[in-house]
Amino acid sequence: MKTVDMLQSHPKGKSANLEAIAACVAACLECADACTICADACLAEEKIAMLRRCIRTDLDCADICRTTATILARQGERNMEIVISQLHACAVACRICATECEQHAEMHRHCRICASACRTCEMVCHQTISMLQGGKTYEPDH
Amino acid sequence: MKTVDMLQSHPKGKSANLEAIAACVAACLECADACTICADACLAEEKIAMLRRCIRTDLDCADICRTTATILARQGERNMEIVISQLHACAVACRICATECEQHAEMHRHCRICASACRTCEMVCHQTISMLQGGKTYEPDH
Amino acid sequence: MKTVDMLQSHPKGKSANLEAIAACVAACLECADACTICADACLAEEKIAMLRRCIRTDLDCADICRTTATILARQGERNMEIVISQLHACAVACRICATECEQHAEMHRHCRICASACRTCEMVCHQTISMLQGGKTYEPDH
Amino acid sequence: MKTVDMLQSHPKGKSANLEAIAACVAACLECADACTICADACLAEEKIAMLRRCIRTDLDCADICRTTATILARQGERNMEIVISQLHACAVACRICATECEQHAEMHRHCRICASACRTCEMVCHQTISMLQGGKTYEPDH
Repeated sequence: MKTVDMLQSHPKGKSANLEAIAACVAACLECADACTICADACLAEEKIAMLRRCIRTDLDCADICRTTATILARQGERNMEIVISQLHACAVACRICATECEQHAEMHRHCRICASACRTCEMVCHQTISMLQGGKTYEPDH
Repeated sequence: MKTVDMLQSHPKGKSANLEAIAACVAACLECADACTICADACLAEEKIAMLRRCIRTDLDCADICRTTATILARQGERNMEIVISQLHACAVACRICATECEQHAEMHRHCRICASACRTCEMVCHQTISMLQGGKTYEPDH
Repeated sequence: MKTVDMLQSHPKGKSANLEAIAACVAACLECADACTICADACLAEEKIAMLRRCIRTDLDCADICRTTATILARQGERNMEIVISQLHACAVACRICATECEQHAEMHRHCRICASACRTCEMVCHQTISMLQGGKTYEPDH
Repeated sequence: MKTVDMLQSHPKGKSANLEAIAACVAACLECADACTICADACLAEEKIAMLRRCIRTDLDCADICRTTATILARQGERNMEIVISQLHACAVACRICATECEQHAEMHRHCRICASACRTCEMVCHQTISMLQGGKTYEPDH
């Protein structure tokens, strides 16, 4: 199954943006998967005491990416403010998780792969925000 | 079990803010519960075709509130940017879901209760953001 | 907001079982909350290396309880097989997480509170299975 | 990123079963994605009143698949009883969701794709249960 095929089967799935939406859903799901496994791998490392922050940030990032993917995959009656503010929170979590994992990337291969998935997801979230806004910059409501 | 007791049992659970954090976790969980049940009740209404947007917004708000509660409940190695941007996304989702549910509040009791849970959660999220920032206004990083 | 009020506002919310369903939803949400905070507290303990299994089990139990609560809260077009097999998985996770937390209960207050929330949730899941089955024993389909 | 690479980067990721575990995680994530989009597409169909049960079952199946993927992706300190009972609940949800979606498969392409993702996930969950048990049949504890 391809996410884009599934999105196109929606009664209103004729948007020009479907490929980009599908790519962002995929990036969020990959990042959630990477962060879940990185947290679990850190928990099994001998020097676990040094990895507390990494585990915590992985768990937060996984939860946020999973929710963002779910919301973004829904096309009907979409509210742009909800989608964009959640994408923004996701980009923030990915940036901070990437920065944390990069500090352990030489030591642990799981942190290296996870940092890369986070950087990709951060970038794709920003691109999706721009696309949904027609190029405008995100301005929160307070 | 009280969330606040559980938070106090944390090795670093001595913060003056614990009661407020526990109240925000509780408001998010209540709102997630209300939105889940409201979506399900809308789905069973005879005039379901008028409730499409309400169901969609309920589902998004439930997912976002649940994730926000989970992240907020973690005290160790907390990253303020992640917590605050997720609280912001939660406040946005609650505001929009409340506005939608309020339009059906006279007709459907589940929308009335859900709108009230959303308004409470929106308010408590904003208070928690202010508290965590020491009174400063939220400014996103782009 | 009370979960039971929300359940009663459903167009088909006239079941005699609503109080019991609401109690099971509440037990699952409390247990998810306790497990999330216990995992986070364990992660902050000095002797973290002894708590790897506890953290892992807490995370699994939290995820399972959250999903079980969501599914159980939906009344419309409920499929009993899905609900009962998920309640069964939840009871298993709660039993195993309780057994693990009980081993650290003298040392850590968060494990003590969490074990108690798990035992309650395990018992309530079994009661809900019995109720939904009209007293019959759960028999999986393979 | 490939899930199997990430699993192999775990300190204990030397299991002969890693490819099979990764395939099951992928099947659960695909099914969760398909069910989320199918529910959303059903909600936008003109004849929504006929699709109430399909939407409900999609939502349950999506939630269960997502949780199952998360738990299965964790390798450290894994408790077999938890993993297997959750895989069992996942297989049940996938079977029932597939049966429901198959009834609308001629009318709606999203139901057709979703039914197929559910059947795949159901099969892979059963294979994973067999593998983890060394070929024995699943016997619940009550």
